Amino acid sequence: MKQEIDLRSDTVTRPTKEMLKVIMSAKVGDDVYKEDPSVNALEEKLAKMFGKDEALFFPTGSMANQAAIKLHTQPAEQLICDKWAHVYNYEGGGVSFNSGVSCKLVDGVRGMITAEQVEENINPPDFYHSPLTSLVCLENTTNKGGGACYDLEEIKKVRKVCNKHNLGLHLDGARLFNALVAKNESAKDYGKLFDTISVCLSKGLGTPMGSVLIGDKKLMKNAIRVRKVLGGGMRQVGFMAVAGIYALDHHVERLSIDHKRASEIGEVLSDRAYVGMVESVETNIVIFYLQDLSNEEKFMKQLQKENIRISNMGHGKLRIVTHLDYSEEMHQKFLKTLQEIKL
Amino acid sequence: MKQEIDLRSDTVTRPTKEMLKVIMSAKVGDDVYKEDPSVNALEEKLAKMFGKDEALFFPTGSMANQAAIKLHTQPAEQLICDKWAHVYNYEGGGVSFNSGVSCKLVDGVRGMITAEQVEENINPPDFYHSPLTSLVCLENTTNKGGGACYDLEEIKKVRKVCNKHNLGLHLDGARLFNALVAKNESAKDYGKLFDTISVCLSKGLGTPMGSVLIGDKKLMKNAIRVRKVLGGGMRQVGFMAVAGIYALDHHVERLSIDHKRASEIGEVLSDRAYVGMVESVETNIVIFYLQDLSNEEKFMKQLQKENIRISNMGHGKLRIVTHLDYSEEMHQKFLKTLQEIKL
Amino acid sequence: MKQEIDLRSDTVTRPTKEMLKVIMSAKVGDDVYKEDPSVNALEEKLAKMFGKDEALFFPTGSMANQAAIKLHTQPAEQLICDKWAHVYNYEGGGVSFNSGVSCKLVDGVRGMITAEQVEENINPPDFYHSPLTSLVCLENTTNKGGGACYDLEEIKKVRKVCNKHNLGLHLDGARLFNALVAKNESAKDYGKLFDTISVCLSKGLGTPMGSVLIGDKKLMKNAIRVRKVLGGGMRQVGFMAVAGIYALDHHVERLSIDHKRASEIGEVLSDRAYVGMVESVETNIVIFYLQDLSNEEKFMKQLQKENIRISNMGHGKLRIVTHLDYSEEMHQKFLKTLQEIKL
Amino acid sequence: MKQEIDLRSDTVTRPTKEMLKVIMSAKVGDDVYKEDPSVNALEEKLAKMFGKDEALFFPTGSMANQAAIKLHTQPAEQLICDKWAHVYNYEGGGVSFNSGVSCKLVDGVRGMITAEQVEENINPPDFYHSPLTSLVCLENTTNKGGGACYDLEEIKKVRKVCNKHNLGLHLDGARLFNALVAKNESAKDYGKLFDTISVCLSKGLGTPMGSVLIGDKKLMKNAIRVRKVLGGGMRQVGFMAVAGIYALDHHVERLSIDHKRASEIGEVLSDRAYVGMVESVETNIVIFYLQDLSNEEKFMKQLQKENIRISNMGHGKLRIVTHLDYSEEMHQKFLKTLQEIKL
Repeated sequence: MKQEIDLRSDTVTRPTKEMLKVIMSAKVGDDVYKEDPSVNALEEKLAKMFGKDEALFFPTGSMANQAAIKLHTQPAEQLICDKWAHVYNYEGGGVSFNSGVSCKLVDGVRGMITAEQVEENINPPDFYHSPLTSLVCLENTTNKGGGACYDLEEIKKVRKVCNKHNLGLHLDGARLFNALVAKNESAKDYGKLFDTISVCLSKGLGTPMGSVLIGDKKLMKNAIRVRKVLGGGMRQVGFMAVAGIYALDHHVERLSIDHKRASEIGEVLSDRAYVGMVESVETNIVIFYLQDLSNEEKFMKQLQKENIRISNMGHGKLRIVTHLDYSEEMHQKFLKTLQEIKL
Repeated sequence: MKQEIDLRSDTVTRPTKEMLKVIMSAKVGDDVYKEDPSVNALEEKLAKMFGKDEALFFPTGSMANQAAIKLHTQPAEQLICDKWAHVYNYEGGGVSFNSGVSCKLVDGVRGMITAEQVEENINPPDFYHSPLTSLVCLENTTNKGGGACYDLEEIKKVRKVCNKHNLGLHLDGARLFNALVAKNESAKDYGKLFDTISVCLSKGLGTPMGSVLIGDKKLMKNAIRVRKVLGGGMRQVGFMAVAGIYALDHHVERLSIDHKRASEIGEVLSDRAYVGMVESVETNIVIFYLQDLSNEEKFMKQLQKENIRISNMGHGKLRIVTHLDYSEEMHQKFLKTLQEIKL
Repeated sequence: MKQEIDLRSDTVTRPTKEMLKVIMSAKVGDDVYKEDPSVNALEEKLAKMFGKDEALFFPTGSMANQAAIKLHTQPAEQLICDKWAHVYNYEGGGVSFNSGVSCKLVDGVRGMITAEQVEENINPPDFYHSPLTSLVCLENTTNKGGGACYDLEEIKKVRKVCNKHNLGLHLDGARLFNALVAKNESAKDYGKLFDTISVCLSKGLGTPMGSVLIGDKKLMKNAIRVRKVLGGGMRQVGFMAVAGIYALDHHVERLSIDHKRASEIGEVLSDRAYVGMVESVETNIVIFYLQDLSNEEKFMKQLQKENIRISNMGHGKLRIVTHLDYSEEMHQKFLKTLQEIKL
Repeated sequence: MKQEIDLRSDTVTRPTKEMLKVIMSAKVGDDVYKEDPSVNALEEKLAKMFGKDEALFFPTGSMANQAAIKLHTQPAEQLICDKWAHVYNYEGGGVSFNSGVSCKLVDGVRGMITAEQVEENINPPDFYHSPLTSLVCLENTTNKGGGACYDLEEIKKVRKVCNKHNLGLHLDGARLFNALVAKNESAKDYGKLFDTISVCLSKGLGTPMGSVLIGDKKLMKNAIRVRKVLGGGMRQVGFMAVAGIYALDHHVERLSIDHKRASEIGEVLSDRAYVGMVESVETNIVIFYLQDLSNEEKFMKQLQKENIRISNMGHGKLRIVTHLDYSEEMHQKFLKTLQEIKL
């Protein structure tokens, strides 16, 4: 059987040999008692990197985002996010389930919203028929928006609107490191602008699992309580945390390779007759549409014949994600396959 | 001081003398024990009118809607409604607070959505990243949509989509009697199509308070539990229920008078130079926009000078609602005022 | 058929003729806009009576209690109350449903708990495995405790414990006026000790419906939002509010008559061979146990033959409640019946 | 510094060398897509072991319990458990936070409740003032009850009560394997009696993290949705799952060693003058009380001097837990220390 090329998501990455060695030699303790030295080291490393007081390890990015939303809100309140936001669409309905909060959905561009849109969507605070707006959630890079990156200047304007209206500002940074590398920005820039930031270690960074929520004491002091009640207080999870430390040291800069390959895939697709449109490729995600939607099944089958897997996002939207386990050899093979497909 | 003309909402109506007499002579009991004969009679009357098994009295329409949503859903699920829906916008965030449910917002026309839109917005039931869609909520007439009425044929199509995808269908019928009168439809038509219907007695019907939720046994058997947990189980509330019975007998057909007056107001507004646009008037609500938004304050002040009150819905949208306490004399006065205003 | 004597609860009272007259002549408005003068007057009257900043009218006592609990807590926190507390046992599970809060149940005496017990049951605030304790709820008089009244000195000690540990203190005062009359205490004494107090107008005070939550601005500023989200924002509910004003002026002192009759019933019961134990009668509730539990059905049937209704609280506990609609004639008849019953 | 002897909990165990080897060679995939072969194998192994349809891996035992409670209940309902139950006391208030459910607390013996007590504590299903009872949670062995084991015959009676009253039955089996070994019972006996069972892999079994929920399809079909919404859907978590498989094969029978050592500790403590009472030792937990409560601090300090850590459960209750990382050498050292302590 042909070697599998899995481009559905960067979540499918497996640890490298070097990362596995680090895992094997991890010093661990009981993190529920906050005695796991590796977890503590990871948390300190990230807090420092973002210039924030504290960080807390979570089993998943969904839980890190959901905990942040809970820390910022009271039940019945409302948060503002893009209509494609991961927190609204792909976290199982958790915003309402865990926090009793509703989402005001903004019609952004590729998953990104402007400061002006945020301000327009704030409910009047003294009109108690409508939920009280208390939080804004941005996502960078955007998932359903095809890895698009925010302009830092726009985020600064959003921050001003939040300050003016006394709103919290959370960043779903599941793929923030892709943005930092693509735009040559620093973590501290983000730490200054957001109250809380979640970053994921198991996507482009290639660890088996885990996300970290970063923020200042005022909000984070209750984070461990919220993690407990959601069932996220694990034991000797330092085995996973050391993989995160390793990834932060070794797997961040190399994201530019994933971006380059994604860009090349985008170019090849743009030249194909069977492709209708390719969205601009900014990081490691390529979103495109077939010329003829009715060819969707046929196209997917031809890829399957080559043991290649990509994502179908529905309504004719197809997604390719490059990552650590997608080698140059696979890349050349995939480009060739795309060039040879006939629909 | 000039007589006040309050056109902000039909909720401002006060009981007529005849209704007050009926209130005085009400037979009452403890409705928590289901021993209030007047409440029981009202509930039976409405269940029968809509051809449903059961009905239950609630202190407010918001609670009747919220209880219905709870009866239809489990936490984390999602309901589909128009982006302007009252349940999403004006019930304090209750959908998420009371039921832990999120709203998929559809971009309808004047608050009304189509069967096709409903079907497009159902999340795939086996993709557990997204909330499970389990309910559709329609509103008829629409509040923020300016009293627009659904086409019954479209509702039949929505019902088919709900049947096909195993979704519940709830009607926020706060002003359903306006639709029935305007379109010459019957309550039973609606009873056949919806699983649950809330109707309000304190808007166009003119009672002091109260709404009723109507549905079949299968769903309604838990309604009294939900009402209890929301704090809606009242005592000798038959005093209010008899007003409802009286209103159903005497105040439904006369809604056509409110509609005629609203229509006349719309016509006068359409002819004014200071008015930009008047939405089509179908029932007792007139929504219009000033030609020059910067005149908003000036316009409201000129009305206030005449002791006339209307609603400002934000973003340049103004709303007038006719009702039982808006007499012919007031109507002529108001039309004249509109004609004389200069901006 | 014999005249019914309903001693199941003081909630069964119907308005007197005088109260009905007051209802008829009420000045009302739309209370959702806070424009109902009668509701506003009732709220001001009660706030002043208790020496507090604000008061808010609710359709039911359950909603007033549930709203208070919500105002005091965040989800996942814990409140301390007696194991028999109404908020835990008889509000449909609302503490967990509406507020996501759990109850630490204290083994009190007749529904009353001591300051010492409160302090013992506070969870350590830095041990995040256990819910954070944030509220204490007392009930006075106690419902399931048979109308027992707290000693004001004990409440002062509870207040001190709350201050020491930064806990809120709420009073479920559904029958507080019975306590005030029985112990000759003042509303202001209670206003000083509690952060929030709910009082009920439809029990001993005899109005058709309604309760009021009283507290200081800091907490009450969000009360109207919570009332809205629970569906408790009513319209021309001044008809009910004026009944409350009337009751506060005319039906408080007469509670001593209910107490005297309850006491006489207790004495008659104590002398009966068929009675095992009668709890001490302090206000308008008599709780007793039959000598032989197997006679329960027989006893209830003999009362039914005389068209007399009392409450069975389960596990052999029977309850009698005197009230405004229980006349001297009924009283003599009832005493005679109790004396003649043979089991 | 002296070698640390940590007897606070069996959660502090670290993987053995053999287990680490197995972790290193794990085959993993993306478990969110259910493509991690190691997680799938662990789930199948446990489902089969307990004779149930399905099993699902969770990051923690708290989340497995909380998910089970959610699967069994609707908000506002009530579950029955012992007053010392872990789900009520040590999961952060999750029962109310995650499920909106309240707990009816039973006064059991060492954390264990009888079928008779369960039946007494069921709320009447048609009395809607009280929460609807829908679930019973047992814990075996009991944590705060000092590792006490249920009599299987009593559990059978509880099952009958649940069947009679249509209640679900969940087992918090965080230390179930200790009970199976101590009482020579089989997993299938438990699979037959309970609807859902959570087992923990990171306590006596010694893996770094993870618990598994086991049950039949009817309930478990929604488990993956609930896990998602709580934020428990992890990626290449097979690294942890293989440790679980290894532990089930190699670390179950050896629990008898932990039990023997706990029993010997209990005996030594019983003979000490400074000890007031030692609870009967049935598995790997020893609970005891000092003769003189005021010696608590002194006693803990003398242990600390020897670098020995045990748990203080409050109110004079001390707890020792033996486990995989507590060697024979440490055991002899600890026994000697206990014999030499003077208070």
